[in-house]
Amino acid sequence: MFWTQSTLGAAHPSGNLSLHGIKSLQYKSTRILSQLPCKSSYQRRPFSNKNMTVELDSNTGVAVIQMKKPPVNSLSLEFLTEFAINMEKLEMDRECRGVVLTSSIPKIFSAGLDINEMYGKTPEHSGEFWRAVQEMWLKLYGSNMVTIAAINGSSPAGGCLMALACDYRIMADNPKYAIGLNETKLGIVAPFWFKDSIINVIGRRATEHSLQLGLMYSASDALKVGLVDQLVPQDKIMTHALSVMSEWLAIPDHARQITKSMMRKPTLDRLLTNRESDIQNFVNFISKDSIQKSLQLYLEMLKQRKS
Amino acid sequence: MFWTQSTLGAAHPSGNLSLHGIKSLQYKSTRILSQLPCKSSYQRRPFSNKNMTVELDSNTGVAVIQMKKPPVNSLSLEFLTEFAINMEKLEMDRECRGVVLTSSIPKIFSAGLDINEMYGKTPEHSGEFWRAVQEMWLKLYGSNMVTIAAINGSSPAGGCLMALACDYRIMADNPKYAIGLNETKLGIVAPFWFKDSIINVIGRRATEHSLQLGLMYSASDALKVGLVDQLVPQDKIMTHALSVMSEWLAIPDHARQITKSMMRKPTLDRLLTNRESDIQNFVNFISKDSIQKSLQLYLEMLKQRKS
Amino acid sequence: MFWTQSTLGAAHPSGNLSLHGIKSLQYKSTRILSQLPCKSSYQRRPFSNKNMTVELDSNTGVAVIQMKKPPVNSLSLEFLTEFAINMEKLEMDRECRGVVLTSSIPKIFSAGLDINEMYGKTPEHSGEFWRAVQEMWLKLYGSNMVTIAAINGSSPAGGCLMALACDYRIMADNPKYAIGLNETKLGIVAPFWFKDSIINVIGRRATEHSLQLGLMYSASDALKVGLVDQLVPQDKIMTHALSVMSEWLAIPDHARQITKSMMRKPTLDRLLTNRESDIQNFVNFISKDSIQKSLQLYLEMLKQRKS
Repeated sequence: MFWTQSTLGAAHPSGNLSLHGIKSLQYKSTRILSQLPCKSSYQRRPFSNKNMTVELDSNTGVAVIQMKKPPVNSLSLEFLTEFAINMEKLEMDRECRGVVLTSSIPKIFSAGLDINEMYGKTPEHSGEFWRAVQEMWLKLYGSNMVTIAAINGSSPAGGCLMALACDYRIMADNPKYAIGLNETKLGIVAPFWFKDSIINVIGRRATEHSLQLGLMYSASDALKVGLVDQLVPQDKIMTHALSVMSEWLAIPDHARQITKSMMRKPTLDRLLTNRESDIQNFVNFISKDSIQKSLQLYLEMLKQRKS
Repeated sequence: MFWTQSTLGAAHPSGNLSLHGIKSLQYKSTRILSQLPCKSSYQRRPFSNKNMTVELDSNTGVAVIQMKKPPVNSLSLEFLTEFAINMEKLEMDRECRGVVLTSSIPKIFSAGLDINEMYGKTPEHSGEFWRAVQEMWLKLYGSNMVTIAAINGSSPAGGCLMALACDYRIMADNPKYAIGLNETKLGIVAPFWFKDSIINVIGRRATEHSLQLGLMYSASDALKVGLVDQLVPQDKIMTHALSVMSEWLAIPDHARQITKSMMRKPTLDRLLTNRESDIQNFVNFISKDSIQKSLQLYLEMLKQRKS
Repeated sequence: MFWTQSTLGAAHPSGNLSLHGIKSLQYKSTRILSQLPCKSSYQRRPFSNKNMTVELDSNTGVAVIQMKKPPVNSLSLEFLTEFAINMEKLEMDRECRGVVLTSSIPKIFSAGLDINEMYGKTPEHSGEFWRAVQEMWLKLYGSNMVTIAAINGSSPAGGCLMALACDYRIMADNPKYAIGLNETKLGIVAPFWFKDSIINVIGRRATEHSLQLGLMYSASDALKVGLVDQLVPQDKIMTHALSVMSEWLAIPDHARQITKSMMRKPTLDRLLTNRESDIQNFVNFISKDSIQKSLQLYLEMLKQRKS
């Protein structure tokens, strides 16, 4: 096939031209922002948030999201909500074509879900929290933008999930950093869409092994198993991420978006179809006395560690 | 996610606590044993059988099944029935958390299905035999226990299937040992659940190649293609298997079991749904005059070889 | 399993004996040839065509299809029709058990779909053209014969698809040759069955990466990612292809065919089920003014290059 990219280069995120009737990624999610200005006038001007900094370079069309919630970028309800709003802003911004996700906390990308959101909370709160976890993943896995994870620290559980949802993963080549879905090690189970996310990256056999043992991979093992795509020296990770991004942005948005949708839609649809029951399962689980007691003990242990 | 394993460590095989509503592996199979004592008092005391020895170490919770049916551990109806009973005993024994499957016959793990069960038998017998083959696989692939194959010899066809059904495969590093689903080489076809089993381990492309050519892999090639997970020197294989087992048993049973079920249930369900038609297909095939004639010739050839 | 291959060796393409009720590859396609002589008497006598040479060696049962349409073996309607007729002839010829697909054009295997078939044509013509593209793939991916691609040159887009549809891919070890589904680079999208074809060969993660970026792999990178199975020196490619073919032909046809069908049928069925809508989508896409304009510009550019 031989025609030029000029053909389809016109409309960016709103277009839905398709060779084979497949539309760009779309899903029926909670619209967090009902109205947003379509044109933004900032140029490399960060719009700061509490838990992350978002900086969009309107020359390159690339935004950098730096997570900055001490001590470990844990995914609280507030963090997740802020993240989803930022992703939606960028998605609707015609100037933004790609996102690099990284951390400004030393040695940690994200430690995953915030346990404080699960202890001593009402079922309503737990349900709201879990919906926000889902929304983070839906926004990231289903993004029309190019998404690159610059994993500059350890990234267990929910942190690993964020990386898995991106288009490309670059990890700092540091033997002390580890990444993986380690839920079973903690006595819990990664839900089906965590499982789908990792199967789509490292394949079925490696996933069975990885999830059953809750494996945390060193950077080099993560590369070997395909959990990350490249290792680079810590101080080169952002430069390299932006360089990879420019390769991805050389592809006409439209063709890339439709292709991405064709690959990811079945996986997105599985959660969208089962979203409410997935929330209900989480709420039922987290409300159990035995689980609450265990969370209490764990939180006390964390407090003692700090002091 | 961060809570401790103490949470879920309580109930072993009977529990069905789940984060996301997925229950442990369960399937509606022929209950071979209707009543079994739930508490066993043996400690490293083997309960011997005709075709295999089963030794459970109640300190470690690990059982070793040693196949010992001369000359090649062929899977006869009697062997398969005994195997299923043993698996069910262990599954229901609260003291048993893991099984190592190996052979006490030199140079052979298992040579696969016993051809004597297919020649000159009634359709009823053939159907009963095939149901026993299915049951062996269902028990092994669907086990809640950790299952490790210590492949200390060659393992074609049905022998390979047994290894594929385990959680982890360790093979003796001996260039003379080979493993694979070599059915096409013999002019026959591996049924769909053999195919599913190998796809889930080595992936789709390698499976297409492997099954079409009926490839038998040397130990080192088996490692390369992912058909086995590790090679170790022959005399270290049991020590190593037990060492790997202890890593798996460090994971809370419950979380691991639910995770295993989440991964394997769709594959188990495919056979459970099509079990009767799969039996009928086998019986129809094996009853053909041309097949019976061929079996006769093959058995005569085997007899001549012996003498 | 142990019976001899003599069992099933009798009937070649018409047989439908099966261990598990799975029949050989069959699909309801446009029968291009309604009546063909079942016995052919040629022996290494090529039957020439306009766009390719087909040479069947009745001693070995192996046909070689050499594509020879200057300048780049582009897949025109005429080419595709001729190809489908040849495949059907060979499929029905009891003497033919395997096909090697290669090119007699230096440095190019096939450059993919012919853009001239898409510019300034009626919707009827476009529909006919797309149906021929589908038919080429259905004939090749669903062939009962052993199909080996001897990729002796570059092979983008539709050329890569032809190679992907074969059972085995051998590529000339020349760093100047590249292969891949590069559609997005041209601003277009590979349809779902192109995507299915490549997933089945290189897996899901590599496909997502490959299709989004429209990657063209050098010969050595194609080997690494699994897009081709082997590299051999350019001048050894046919000798090697025939040698690999003889290994495949050592397997009883019947067992191999049923196994191939078991692996490929779901993928074939997806296109067969959606064939008309896939054509309609293509026609709608290609009829757009913007696309036609783009094709015009592209064709003018090609003309200027030549002069």
